[in-house]
Amino acid sequence: KFVLDYFKVDEPEHITELPRGAEIILLDHNEEKQSIDNIKDLDIVEIIDHHKIKLETDKPISIYIKPLGSSCSIIAEKYFETQTDLPQDIAGLLLAGIVSDTLFFRSPTTTETDKQLVEKLKKISEIDDVEKFSLEMFNAKSDLGDITAEELIKLDYKVFEFGGNEYGIGVMETTNVDFGLNKKEELIEKMKEIKEKDGLKGLFFVIVDILNEKSYTLCSGQEEKELFGKLFSARDDDGVLFADKLVSRKKQIVPAFEEYFKKQK
Amino acid sequence: KFVLDYFKVDEPEHITELPRGAEIILLDHNEEKQSIDNIKDLDIVEIIDHHKIKLETDKPISIYIKPLGSSCSIIAEKYFETQTDLPQDIAGLLLAGIVSDTLFFRSPTTTETDKQLVEKLKKISEIDDVEKFSLEMFNAKSDLGDITAEELIKLDYKVFEFGGNEYGIGVMETTNVDFGLNKKEELIEKMKEIKEKDGLKGLFFVIVDILNEKSYTLCSGQEEKELFGKLFSARDDDGVLFADKLVSRKKQIVPAFEEYFKKQK
Repeated sequence: KFVLDYFKVDEPEHITELPRGAEIILLDHNEEKQSIDNIKDLDIVEIIDHHKIKLETDKPISIYIKPLGSSCSIIAEKYFETQTDLPQDIAGLLLAGIVSDTLFFRSPTTTETDKQLVEKLKKISEIDDVEKFSLEMFNAKSDLGDITAEELIKLDYKVFEFGGNEYGIGVMETTNVDFGLNKKEELIEKMKEIKEKDGLKGLFFVIVDILNEKSYTLCSGQEEKELFGKLFSARDDDGVLFADKLVSRKKQIVPAFEEYFKKQK
Repeated sequence: KFVLDYFKVDEPEHITELPRGAEIILLDHNEEKQSIDNIKDLDIVEIIDHHKIKLETDKPISIYIKPLGSSCSIIAEKYFETQTDLPQDIAGLLLAGIVSDTLFFRSPTTTETDKQLVEKLKKISEIDDVEKFSLEMFNAKSDLGDITAEELIKLDYKVFEFGGNEYGIGVMETTNVDFGLNKKEELIEKMKEIKEKDGLKGLFFVIVDILNEKSYTLCSGQEEKELFGKLFSARDDDGVLFADKLVSRKKQIVPAFEEYFKKQK
């Protein structure tokens, strides 16, 4: 919202369903579980993403995946490669996306390409001080007002299958970890509810302190807590699992889970 | 071989294994079964392809897939997009690849992009008469000398999983169908052997008459023959299944099998 206001761009509509047979492009994800509700009725014609892939299509489609820090990097690169004119506001949105996804280059998902693209986008978008801009953006992101516990958990939430069971992992990237930690009891209650309702084996809510590259994780139960603590050498501090340098779901958390469950087989 | 000689390019080495952990790019395929023997020990860093996808990676990698008629089209497009200098011989090899994969635009896999790219490649490769060139190429391809039955079946051969069972489908694209049909008994014997040895549910060998857009299919057994006949309304002519306009494994044969087995569930 801060970024949209900054560049005076209208907020896009949030869509949860589309008419049967509609042609869609999956952006920034490729697994069905992470997509629009009625994806099985739709016709996927293209995928643009930077995540690992788990996918089967029934016909050849366009797929463009690169292991960059952000899907915005892929789009920006495509603009430059094809020498398509890039308007100032779009350049700004892409820059904001890269800075946000890479936690302003602090995330281990960051690549040299991301940094070079931000340099190029900086000129076009006329953002003189990217550091100041990103700090303002992260602060705005941390100012979540009267959001409910469930909204907070689901803000950036994905379901994964590990060892035959489903686990939900929500992430809150913030400059103000206390906003989440102060709601600890309420959040854990809600997480237990979601776990029950969605038939999950477990639920994790990772509060990432962007500026200091640390994280504080809440768990939906004792078993999950022990697992997470073991996997990430996280210290249990009054029900919160503290881990230094653990900030990326994609590059750190999910791969560690997968490796662990692979060994269990 | 005809094309390599034409442009005086050395024949590449055929590799069936690579050292553990070697980094590889999969080109023109994405399923493990269709790749190098010890693929499970290798590190796939990129995939460039034009087939439908069936794939799971354990980390984000570069994937570039477009539903064009040939992987050579994707590579040529990339050259033009990034304005990289394209040497005459490479342009010729890419043109030959597109013409070969699309059966000189006769295959239903052909797209407008393939035709446009061939126009561009034609100038760079200095092939004045593409039709004459492609006819010579197809004739050379049909001149298979003293190839064994097994080599012929495996020349362009892939294994697919349909309805929980594995099926092998070999394709011979030729201007001289008699070369294959004259070896009918020997080929069917060998197909039965391969079916047994590889634990397949069935094996099909499709002899495609490129110039007239017809095909003649041999089957490894009676059950397979009935299935193929039903799926493609193919006429049984003395043990050979004749089908008009059936020329593409990717666009016609495999999708029909998949649809059939999906309905059986």
